[in-house]
Amino acid sequence: MQLLEALNWRYATKKMNGQPVPEDKVEKIVEAAYLSPTANGLQPFKIIVITNPELKAKIQPIAMNQSQVVDGSHLLVFAVWDNYTEERLEAVFAWTKQQQGVPPDFLAEYHQRVKNMYINRPAEVNFQHAARQAYIAFGLAIAAAAELQVDTTPMEGFDNKALDELLDLPAQGLRSVTLLPLGYRDPENDWLLKLKKARTPKELFLRKIA
Amino acid sequence: MQLLEALNWRYATKKMNGQPVPEDKVEKIVEAAYLSPTANGLQPFKIIVITNPELKAKIQPIAMNQSQVVDGSHLLVFAVWDNYTEERLEAVFAWTKQQQGVPPDFLAEYHQRVKNMYINRPAEVNFQHAARQAYIAFGLAIAAAAELQVDTTPMEGFDNKALDELLDLPAQGLRSVTLLPLGYRDPENDWLLKLKKARTPKELFLRKIA
Repeated sequence: MQLLEALNWRYATKKMNGQPVPEDKVEKIVEAAYLSPTANGLQPFKIIVITNPELKAKIQPIAMNQSQVVDGSHLLVFAVWDNYTEERLEAVFAWTKQQQGVPPDFLAEYHQRVKNMYINRPAEVNFQHAARQAYIAFGLAIAAAAELQVDTTPMEGFDNKALDELLDLPAQGLRSVTLLPLGYRDPENDWLLKLKKARTPKELFLRKIA
Repeated sequence: MQLLEALNWRYATKKMNGQPVPEDKVEKIVEAAYLSPTANGLQPFKIIVITNPELKAKIQPIAMNQSQVVDGSHLLVFAVWDNYTEERLEAVFAWTKQQQGVPPDFLAEYHQRVKNMYINRPAEVNFQHAARQAYIAFGLAIAAAAELQVDTTPMEGFDNKALDELLDLPAQGLRSVTLLPLGYRDPENDWLLKLKKARTPKELFLRKIA
């Protein structure tokens, strides 16, 4: 089973060797995130792919100086909607109906219910919900990379506000939640690669009610 | 690429046919969630696999009466730590060191930093963070199922508090965040299967900074 093999192969790469990831692989990694399931199909996030060396160099100090930010050829930023608004939801429903070739009033009641649920909640509650959806895509991008034997370092450890300002995200109604450098491991200089993958004892992770 | 094929094949199944999913496939689906990356390797969640028909019948009304809760042979509940506590973190560090065969003081400074970060934050902030980690695993379980041609319905629409009480989760320091019925689609009676998969226009989803 390819997915399990990929998940066993991957690890949070601590040292990358600078070799660039081919564009066709990057496209597939982004595609996995693009196809990810999200609540009500809203896809409330965006992926920013940064290859610009100067920009990566500016991001490194914001991200606890982690070397993978510059040693990875591509830096993916997962940027989440700061809120669900009527306008954003209407846009999703409109292009969904267009792609599906259904009449404009298709599922109108359902869409109204979805709107009522989201737009009456505080922005922070909506952002937290949207962030969870982005994490589904974050995981699938990591898995897609691993299937292609591309290494990644899932990162939450950075100054979100500083990155948001650097990338002008507030003006776009977005907030960064995670970073994902793509690259290739440097086996000789990566201390973590030498250690066995550790996991919670299965009996604490899994409970069966038959 | 198997993952992209699987993601294109899957959809949020609205009607399942009652055919049971073999146990070896369920094990692989759980394994994908178990191998998921999580912040600091903490795996701050648990998966509860419910096959008991009476219990599934009790959950259905809590989950907006969605038929997949009972028509799926296995119902996975993703239950998240209600907080990061010193005890929980110490336990993870202990079994990690044991599995890796490293000395007890290995990475002691790093572990102290991680503890300081988590245990000084409000429980709700920690729960929200832990929930995001569970969503990574949730997505990988969905992808693993699709690779095995097992259908799933990712569900957030249920009464979390009622489910937590029914499963006695508060006593275990857990809070439910998502449900995932596993089963097989009923093509004739599933309206959603007849519709094309819709996605955000790619130019709105992806931004490149070269």
